[in-house]
Amino acid sequence: MTSKARVVIVGAGFGGLNAARTLGKAGLRITVIDRKNFHTFQPLLYQVATAGLSPGEIAAPIRSILRSHKNVEVLMGEVTGFDLERRIVQIPDAEIPYDYLIIAAGATHSYFGHEDWEPFAPGLKTIEDALEIRRRVLLAFELAERQAAAGQSELPLNFVVVGGGPTGVELAGTLAEISRHALAHEFRSIDPRRTHILLIEGGARVLPTYPEDLSRSAEEQLRGLGVECRTSAIVTQIEPGAVDIGETRLPATVVLWAAGVAASPLGKKLGAACDRAGRVPVQADLSLPGHPEVFVIGDLAAAKDEQGKMLPGVAPVAIQEGKFVAKLIREEVRRSGSKPVGHGSSQRMAFHYWDKGSLATIGRAAAVAQFGKIHISGFVAWLSWLFVHILFLIGFRNRLLVFIQWAWSYVTYERGARLITGSTYLPGWTASSPGSTVTSEQHVVQEIHSGTPK
Amino acid sequence: MTSKARVVIVGAGFGGLNAARTLGKAGLRITVIDRKNFHTFQPLLYQVATAGLSPGEIAAPIRSILRSHKNVEVLMGEVTGFDLERRIVQIPDAEIPYDYLIIAAGATHSYFGHEDWEPFAPGLKTIEDALEIRRRVLLAFELAERQAAAGQSELPLNFVVVGGGPTGVELAGTLAEISRHALAHEFRSIDPRRTHILLIEGGARVLPTYPEDLSRSAEEQLRGLGVECRTSAIVTQIEPGAVDIGETRLPATVVLWAAGVAASPLGKKLGAACDRAGRVPVQADLSLPGHPEVFVIGDLAAAKDEQGKMLPGVAPVAIQEGKFVAKLIREEVRRSGSKPVGHGSSQRMAFHYWDKGSLATIGRAAAVAQFGKIHISGFVAWLSWLFVHILFLIGFRNRLLVFIQWAWSYVTYERGARLITGSTYLPGWTASSPGSTVTSEQHVVQEIHSGTPK
Repeated sequence: MTSKARVVIVGAGFGGLNAARTLGKAGLRITVIDRKNFHTFQPLLYQVATAGLSPGEIAAPIRSILRSHKNVEVLMGEVTGFDLERRIVQIPDAEIPYDYLIIAAGATHSYFGHEDWEPFAPGLKTIEDALEIRRRVLLAFELAERQAAAGQSELPLNFVVVGGGPTGVELAGTLAEISRHALAHEFRSIDPRRTHILLIEGGARVLPTYPEDLSRSAEEQLRGLGVECRTSAIVTQIEPGAVDIGETRLPATVVLWAAGVAASPLGKKLGAACDRAGRVPVQADLSLPGHPEVFVIGDLAAAKDEQGKMLPGVAPVAIQEGKFVAKLIREEVRRSGSKPVGHGSSQRMAFHYWDKGSLATIGRAAAVAQFGKIHISGFVAWLSWLFVHILFLIGFRNRLLVFIQWAWSYVTYERGARLITGSTYLPGWTASSPGSTVTSEQHVVQEIHSGTPK
Repeated sequence: MTSKARVVIVGAGFGGLNAARTLGKAGLRITVIDRKNFHTFQPLLYQVATAGLSPGEIAAPIRSILRSHKNVEVLMGEVTGFDLERRIVQIPDAEIPYDYLIIAAGATHSYFGHEDWEPFAPGLKTIEDALEIRRRVLLAFELAERQAAAGQSELPLNFVVVGGGPTGVELAGTLAEISRHALAHEFRSIDPRRTHILLIEGGARVLPTYPEDLSRSAEEQLRGLGVECRTSAIVTQIEPGAVDIGETRLPATVVLWAAGVAASPLGKKLGAACDRAGRVPVQADLSLPGHPEVFVIGDLAAAKDEQGKMLPGVAPVAIQEGKFVAKLIREEVRRSGSKPVGHGSSQRMAFHYWDKGSLATIGRAAAVAQFGKIHISGFVAWLSWLFVHILFLIGFRNRLLVFIQWAWSYVTYERGARLITGSTYLPGWTASSPGSTVTSEQHVVQEIHSGTPK
C-alpha cells in the first residue's frame, strides 16, 4: 500500500469528495481528512435552518459515501498546518505524508472585520449554524406567544436577513413561507402571518451575480411571498435586537447573516499571497505556484476562466475542479510513477469550467434560473431547482427521504423538523428570564463558534 | 373564553398530551406548558442515540399535535413554581391561573448523589442527551481510526453501559449491532467488530422488572449480539476513561448511564412529602391530598394499584392516567360548573391501570415481550415491539418516515443519522488535541446540562 503514490485530500465538500471518488478508481492510496465525519449538502442547509429538513437528511457520513473505494481512508480531524517542503499535512496528533495534496477546505462566512456581530447575526455554512438559526427563528415565535398569552405587550416579530445573494434570498423567502403557512394556525395569541421579514442588500439589486431581469423577478417573487427588500442599504451596526442602516435603527427579533464569504483560514497556512477574500491564487492547472504536487480547489481557490474572470464559489465549479485534478494526478502517476518530479505545471492542460447555468430558489414554487441565454422564473424554475438538487443529493436513502419530505410539506405546508434544542436564550429578547440569560448566552456563542472554523 | 373553567397542564409527555387531547374535545380552556416546544417519543430515544433515527423523526411540535383543538393553547416555558392557594402556575415572566391543574413533568436520570459522574456518563432522557451519546459513540470510532492510521497504539474500544433495565439493554444491544454491522466495513485501520460492549447491572439479572425466563432470554440474546453482561455488579466510581466495580478498574472509551431515574424536581415544589425517587404520593383519583383540583400523573406520580403495588414509570401508565384525569375533570365541570368546590376526591372514582403487557427491545430482531401469561422472545417479540411503537409514534408523517428508515436499515444495516455535531472532545481520550480539550469539555458539560432539567 505504502509503495503506491499517496494522495491526501483536505476537506470532503463537493470538491474533495469528487476528487476522492475519481481517484478511488485508480491504484493510488487516498487519504481524505475533514473536520467533520460527514459531508454536508450545503445547497439545502437553508432547509435545515427553516425546519423543513433534519440534519441527517442533508448530510451523509464521509466514510459511507466512500465505503466501496477500498483504497480510500477517511480521517476525521482538524488540519493544523502544512509542511510543503517535507510534503506533510499536520493534524493535532499526527503528521500525514503525501505525494500529491489536494486542498478543498471551502469557505466560511465573513463579517468584514465585525466578528463581534456573529453572536447576534449567525451565518449559514454548517449544520451547527443551521440548527442555531432554526433555534432562534422558532424560539422567537414561542416567546412572542408566551408574552402575548401573559397579557404583556406583544413584541413585533421582525426578521432581518443581511445579504441579498442566493442564501439571503432563500432564507428570507422560506421564512416568509413558514410564517404565512406552516405556523399560521398553530398560535392562539399571536398571528405569525403578521411577521415582518426584511432582506437587506448592499448592492443595487438582489442576486447581483444574476442577469438584471432575473434579479427583478426575484424581487417580485419575494414581495409576493411577503418579504420587504431594501437594496443599496449598508448595515453599520448589529446589536442584540437591533440592526442599524446608517442613522436608522431597525428593531430585529432575529438577525441572520448572509452577506459575506471568506475562504478557509487554511489558505494562509500555504504561505501563498491570498486575495482579499482569503482565496489562494492558483495556476491554470489549479496547482500552487512552485508546487506542482499541491492543488487548491473549490471555494478556497482563486481560479480564473479563459477571460481572466474569477470562477464563482458554487458547487458545480468545485465538482468539476475536483474531477479535473483527480484525473490529472491519475494520468501523471500512470505515466511517471508516484513522484511528480520534473512535471512542471506548464506541461499540464488547463482547467476549463463548463457553466451549465445557475439556479436560485426563493420559496414555495418560487425560483429563478439561467441556462445560457434562457432565463426562467417561478414554478418551472423551482421545479428544475428541486429536480437538480434532489438528484445531486448524496446517497440514495437521503434522496428518497428528502423527496417524501418535500412532497409532504408541499401538500400540507408542514415543516417536519421544528425542534428547539440547546439553550432558550434569544439575544436582545427582554422577556426571557434574566436568570438563565448569562449562561445560555455563553452557550449560544459557543454553539456558534463550534460550528465555524477557528 | 375566560368564563370557562381553565385547566393548566404542565408537561407534554405521554401523560400531559393525552390529557390535553381528551380535554380538547370538552368546552374548557386548556393551557399546556412545557420546557420544550416538542413532544419527544421517549421509547425511540435510543435510536437517536445510536444514529438510527434523526431527532425530527421521534419528536413533533406540541402545537402541531394539538393544532386542531382550538380551545388548547401551548406555551413554551420552564415552570418555576406553584401557588396552590392562589391557584397559580409560575413561569419566568408570567403567572398562569388555573381552576384545575394537571402536573405531568416526568422524570430525569439520577446518579444517586454522584452527580459528578454525569459529564463522563451521560444518561438518556432528552433529545439533547441522545445527541450527546451519539456524538461520543461515533467520535470514539473516529478517534480510534485516526490514532491507528497515524501508527499510534490502537486504544481498545470499550463501551460500558451502566444499568440493565430496558434502556440499558436496548443501548447495549444496539451498540453491538452497529459495531458489528453498520460500521464494520467503513474503517481501514481498525476493526469496529472488535468493539467490546459491557452491560453492568447491580441486580441479579437484566430487566429485573420482567419475569425471570425473559431476563434469561434477554441475556442470551445480548450475548448473541456480542454484549458481555455483568450482573450483581455495583459501580463505585466513574472517571474520564474508566469505570470502577469495587476494586477492579475497567477502561472505558464511552460510558453511558441507564441506572437510575428520579422524578422531576417540580414534585418537591408542591410541598408534598415525595418518596425516595422524588415522586409525589397521590390519592386513588390521582389528586394531591388536600387539593382535589390538582392532579399529578405519569412518572412524577407515586400511584399504586389495587394491591398497593407501585405503578411502573412507563408510557401506558402515563397515557391512561392522562385520559382518566381529563375525563374526570370534564365530568365534574359538566355537573357543577368550573369550580371543583365541594368535590372531595373521595366522591370520585379511583384510577385503574389496565396492564396490556410489556415489551423490551434488545437489538436487530431481538426483544422480549410479556402479555399476561404469554412470554415471547426473539424475532416475533421484536416485530410486535416494532409494530406497537411505530403505531403509537405521534404524527403520521413521522410514522411513515420512521418505517421507511427502519425497513431501509434492516435491509442495508445502514444507520441514517451518523453525524458528529458539537465539540470533538471525548472525556479521558488522551489522543485528542490538548489545546481544544478545556473549552470543549466545558461545552460538553454545558450540552449535557442544557438537556437535563435544572
